[in-house]
Amino acid sequence: MEATLITVGDEILIGQVVDTNSAWMGQELNLRGIKVKEIITISDTSEAIIETLKSVFENSDLILMTGGLGPTKDDITKKSIATYFGVEMELHEPTYEWIRRFLEKLQRTPTEAHKEQCFMPVNATLLHNKMGSAPGMWFDEKDKVLISMPGVPYEMKSIMEEEVFPRLKDRFVSKPIVHKTILTIGEGETRIAAKIENFENALPENLKLAYLPNLGMVRLRLSATGDNEQLLNDLLDSKVQELQALIPDFIFGYGNETIQEAVGKLFIEKNKTIGTAESCTGGYIAHLITRVSGASSYFMGGVTPYSNAMKQKMLNVKTTTLNTFGAVSEETVIEMVNGSLDLLETDIALAVSGIAGPGGGTSEKPVGTIWLAIGDKNNIKTVKLQLGKDRLKNIQYTSIAALNMMRKFLLNGGVNK
Amino acid sequence: MEATLITVGDEILIGQVVDTNSAWMGQELNLRGIKVKEIITISDTSEAIIETLKSVFENSDLILMTGGLGPTKDDITKKSIATYFGVEMELHEPTYEWIRRFLEKLQRTPTEAHKEQCFMPVNATLLHNKMGSAPGMWFDEKDKVLISMPGVPYEMKSIMEEEVFPRLKDRFVSKPIVHKTILTIGEGETRIAAKIENFENALPENLKLAYLPNLGMVRLRLSATGDNEQLLNDLLDSKVQELQALIPDFIFGYGNETIQEAVGKLFIEKNKTIGTAESCTGGYIAHLITRVSGASSYFMGGVTPYSNAMKQKMLNVKTTTLNTFGAVSEETVIEMVNGSLDLLETDIALAVSGIAGPGGGTSEKPVGTIWLAIGDKNNIKTVKLQLGKDRLKNIQYTSIAALNMMRKFLLNGGVNK
Repeated sequence: MEATLITVGDEILIGQVVDTNSAWMGQELNLRGIKVKEIITISDTSEAIIETLKSVFENSDLILMTGGLGPTKDDITKKSIATYFGVEMELHEPTYEWIRRFLEKLQRTPTEAHKEQCFMPVNATLLHNKMGSAPGMWFDEKDKVLISMPGVPYEMKSIMEEEVFPRLKDRFVSKPIVHKTILTIGEGETRIAAKIENFENALPENLKLAYLPNLGMVRLRLSATGDNEQLLNDLLDSKVQELQALIPDFIFGYGNETIQEAVGKLFIEKNKTIGTAESCTGGYIAHLITRVSGASSYFMGGVTPYSNAMKQKMLNVKTTTLNTFGAVSEETVIEMVNGSLDLLETDIALAVSGIAGPGGGTSEKPVGTIWLAIGDKNNIKTVKLQLGKDRLKNIQYTSIAALNMMRKFLLNGGVNK
Repeated sequence: MEATLITVGDEILIGQVVDTNSAWMGQELNLRGIKVKEIITISDTSEAIIETLKSVFENSDLILMTGGLGPTKDDITKKSIATYFGVEMELHEPTYEWIRRFLEKLQRTPTEAHKEQCFMPVNATLLHNKMGSAPGMWFDEKDKVLISMPGVPYEMKSIMEEEVFPRLKDRFVSKPIVHKTILTIGEGETRIAAKIENFENALPENLKLAYLPNLGMVRLRLSATGDNEQLLNDLLDSKVQELQALIPDFIFGYGNETIQEAVGKLFIEKNKTIGTAESCTGGYIAHLITRVSGASSYFMGGVTPYSNAMKQKMLNVKTTTLNTFGAVSEETVIEMVNGSLDLLETDIALAVSGIAGPGGGTSEKPVGTIWLAIGDKNNIKTVKLQLGKDRLKNIQYTSIAALNMMRKFLLNGGVNK
């Protein structure tokens, strides 16, 4: 089963936007046993769309298009598809009604452009878009399927998950392919590969292992193909157990779980509360924690004392500490933890101070020098990171490391194990 | 003058790697008056490469391929090109010598695989790769040109800059194409389209307008083609001025600027400091502000009082206010602003409290109800948002709206204009 992805949009051809939609679709389709054979990005002109559909329909059973479905004039995908199929467009009343209600919630009324948006090729099956006003469209053409969706990533993803994947499963029966993703944190790809080398070499033919590294975390994806889904699942379960025995400290979860979700569960399980004091990460750790629904049961609050004055006022960091050791020091983050425990009244507090860059470094403390501390009333652990010069990457990597410190502190009261 | 980009690599089709090469090439080629008409990503199989070359050579004068030129077994681009042209491969001695010296510097000696890498299609003109061992290749085929380069981004960029662009300039005289991107915030695509309808309808033939919406912001891209670059730039400048007159309140910047960068510049220009008090956004506004290098000159700090107790303790929100109106209310965010001004000692403070979802809503205050306030010692403005049920989207949209409130407050002391 092979699919072709078509992305419509001049913004990608001129390099203003990087095509991340196709990467996401490629990953998700693969997980469901559908291989992407080609990704084509074309201009948002009727001619390009029609020509591409003609040539792609010859070689592909499944075509997924994104882009060009919004309410403005540069959105011509829908009309081009109607032209390609040689069908009329007609007003789709339920969609118009949905848009009317959608806008009502935002205290707006539909414009002519919104109405225009509700004209659909008569052969389209509409795919509900709960994240926006333009629905997706599904077309059956003999044995082949064309799906068209808006290019806005969260709208496309919502339509894919809610409408497309269930229909694809019904429509295209393929050999079972089963995946398990094991989530690790705190060790790089190479070191993990060395630790599980024998395991990897002994994997059977129908089992593939992929390393998917990303910012302090590595996902290990095991994919098994065969005839019997139950047997494949059993095989994967036994392999996951082997991995658990080999690298127990690094595995924090499975599947699509995030580190903040895994840590959140641990806070609930251990019945502990947490507060944060962030200087160089500027609130990003608190953001990661509070992205998780229900975080209010363990996250009481955080502070971002960006100036030295605020570190003193909010967290009682001593003037002598700042003057002697500097804001980026082990001594300062320890005082920040103690100050946070007092201010936020939590069981555990985490503090971070560093030089995110790209400016602000010294020879003694170059850009990327980051101090972290975590602790409770009895016990404080510190970690020093030495990262690169990319500000955003430093903020993100440090925040992931902070969450891992919380995980280790909750599991065994230490961060160096 | 139109080009087609071909990217060879399964890692992109399965979504493991996002194709950033094509975006860079699209940008750089456009700047030189060469329009990318299509980007095609294919599998690294001989069949896919040869089939794609056949079809692309029919419609394109210039083809740029990346990927599949390294020393490992999955790199078959070169042989496929030779097959496509029906030519032999031969050892290219100068390349072998170059690789020998390149490896010598790394204290390594060439392997068989390295020697293999020096066999080239006899009709190739080699393009020197000073960043790696695999040279690029240039093929003339009648009036058309095929260029093949390694997929490693810095190698590709180096070959493009040193070898390809100078040759393209000599070879293809092309019409200039000029772009301007106008960044807007605070109004949707449809409403902006309505406001600039006459402007858009009156655009000359050689000028195209594209809408690129994303979470509370819309980028408007004007692209002009013609003979004289200076005239095109003048034309675009005059059109940008027209837009400025039509939608002055919505335009916050141009090109690749972010809203947090634009707001940061305003803080510096107006010599004002800011502090934040975030409940439902959980630190994301502070994160956006501090993503900008140099934010410490205007951002003094922020707090994330996630519990009611912390809103009272850190910001002096009154018990009666919380009991009477609730944490998600205009009254509470106003008190949060006042408390932040006292605590953070800034000129301006912004506060937000809401129900990010997906749980926690009531019939009176459904999920997505968000109150924001911004103010200084004299003047506080509030805004209520009614958003959807997606937690992360609510956090992000609210944070963008908060940055826009800062922008408006700095510009004219109001947020409702």
